[in-house]
Amino acid sequence: MGILYIVSTGPGGIEYLTPRASAALEQSEYVIGNRFYIEHLSPLLDGKEIIFSSMGAEVERAQRAAELARDHIVSMVSGGDAGVYGMASIVLEVLEHAGYDGVVEVIPGITAATMAASRLGSPLSGDYVTLSLSDLLTPWDVIEKRLELAFQMEIPVALYNPRSRGRPHNLGKALDILSRYRTKDTPIGIVKNASRPGEEMFIMTLAQLADNDDLVDMHSIVIIGGAESRVWQRGDDVRGIITPRGYHNKYKY
Amino acid sequence: MGILYIVSTGPGGIEYLTPRASAALEQSEYVIGNRFYIEHLSPLLDGKEIIFSSMGAEVERAQRAAELARDHIVSMVSGGDAGVYGMASIVLEVLEHAGYDGVVEVIPGITAATMAASRLGSPLSGDYVTLSLSDLLTPWDVIEKRLELAFQMEIPVALYNPRSRGRPHNLGKALDILSRYRTKDTPIGIVKNASRPGEEMFIMTLAQLADNDDLVDMHSIVIIGGAESRVWQRGDDVRGIITPRGYHNKYKY
Repeated sequence: MGILYIVSTGPGGIEYLTPRASAALEQSEYVIGNRFYIEHLSPLLDGKEIIFSSMGAEVERAQRAAELARDHIVSMVSGGDAGVYGMASIVLEVLEHAGYDGVVEVIPGITAATMAASRLGSPLSGDYVTLSLSDLLTPWDVIEKRLELAFQMEIPVALYNPRSRGRPHNLGKALDILSRYRTKDTPIGIVKNASRPGEEMFIMTLAQLADNDDLVDMHSIVIIGGAESRVWQRGDDVRGIITPRGYHNKYKY
Repeated sequence: MGILYIVSTGPGGIEYLTPRASAALEQSEYVIGNRFYIEHLSPLLDGKEIIFSSMGAEVERAQRAAELARDHIVSMVSGGDAGVYGMASIVLEVLEHAGYDGVVEVIPGITAATMAASRLGSPLSGDYVTLSLSDLLTPWDVIEKRLELAFQMEIPVALYNPRSRGRPHNLGKALDILSRYRTKDTPIGIVKNASRPGEEMFIMTLAQLADNDDLVDMHSIVIIGGAESRVWQRGDDVRGIITPRGYHNKYKY
């Protein structure tokens, strides 16, 4: 009987990979996943059987992992947190349908949203919404309805898959909706390749981003400030975004 | 000139502490934080000056850290992710007011919500909302409005601070609101002390939890399924909750 680890690898390098995830990889005979995420882990994968799978082949990848895990120790790797826009759900569904009776463990990881947030300061400090603008698996009208409600909550919104070559207009459409509920100076943070080579960060207002949304790509996370979010300054320099938790209403500091 | 690390320690033990967080602690002369979180880290803290601070003293704690970090390397530790209901925002606010010009780095961590989700299977697989039921810093009418909108989104909701001795009725009130938007068999997962000693997990329907909400305490995370969430079974055993990402609409498996 085998073991299937669904291993969250975090946002990039092994600096943000937990010891629990490392231990699972070390114990595994097979490591299966998207090349992009596996390549970041190469120092940990000596002597393992590596199975590269490509984007779009998630169902096939999950089936292959389930098959191998009948007799082997297998790690299915997934970037960020496997349970947030990752491989966990499809793998568990496939295991269920296949009647798999081995051990399965989902190992959590640093999400792309909280990694990006940490680079920006503290934009997600309290309540927040996590939404994806990809309409590959969710119809656009459902996404639009969720955006409408999320913006009415007046709390920060972290956007995954904000824009790609195949979906160049979804971010613009989301910002149009945003401008019906929030002022033009709403602070928005964009982090590209957070914690990976080529990391970049931008802090803009809603009005500025609406005119420059082509700087956002599929490796970006966009964090839209809530009604209480504000720019975090050092002197005249914009450092990031803070969403205060409300201590200023109760204490002096 | 000093360094201030705002270190996310994850949900509990050092199994889920990232190498980046460990390295920051190792480099620090002072470690300051709530006793509950510091105690989990004791294997890493030999020879450091430890400053325990109590719950409710967050502003004072942040001020102390900012003061020490003028001349020292200091780690302010915060459970889960420091940027999600943690110490990051108040520390950054205090640094800003104090005109601090040293280095500051926010180090992200595994959030309590994604740790709990991993124990339940994959309940937060796609879009989701993160809300706290604590009305210590946010007025209850604001929380209620956010709950109303969140439940209309029909996506999963992760509840922090769902219930405590001081706030025994907030979860019940939230479930009352939920029952206006979702059916009585909505799956809800409760994880107590996720990844810590005494870990427990419950999967219930909305109707069942409404009658038993006293099993939820301040060390619990409650994850309310969205319209597409369902129980994850192995034979007749309930294993957890899955929110499918929609692959079943496009593929056979």
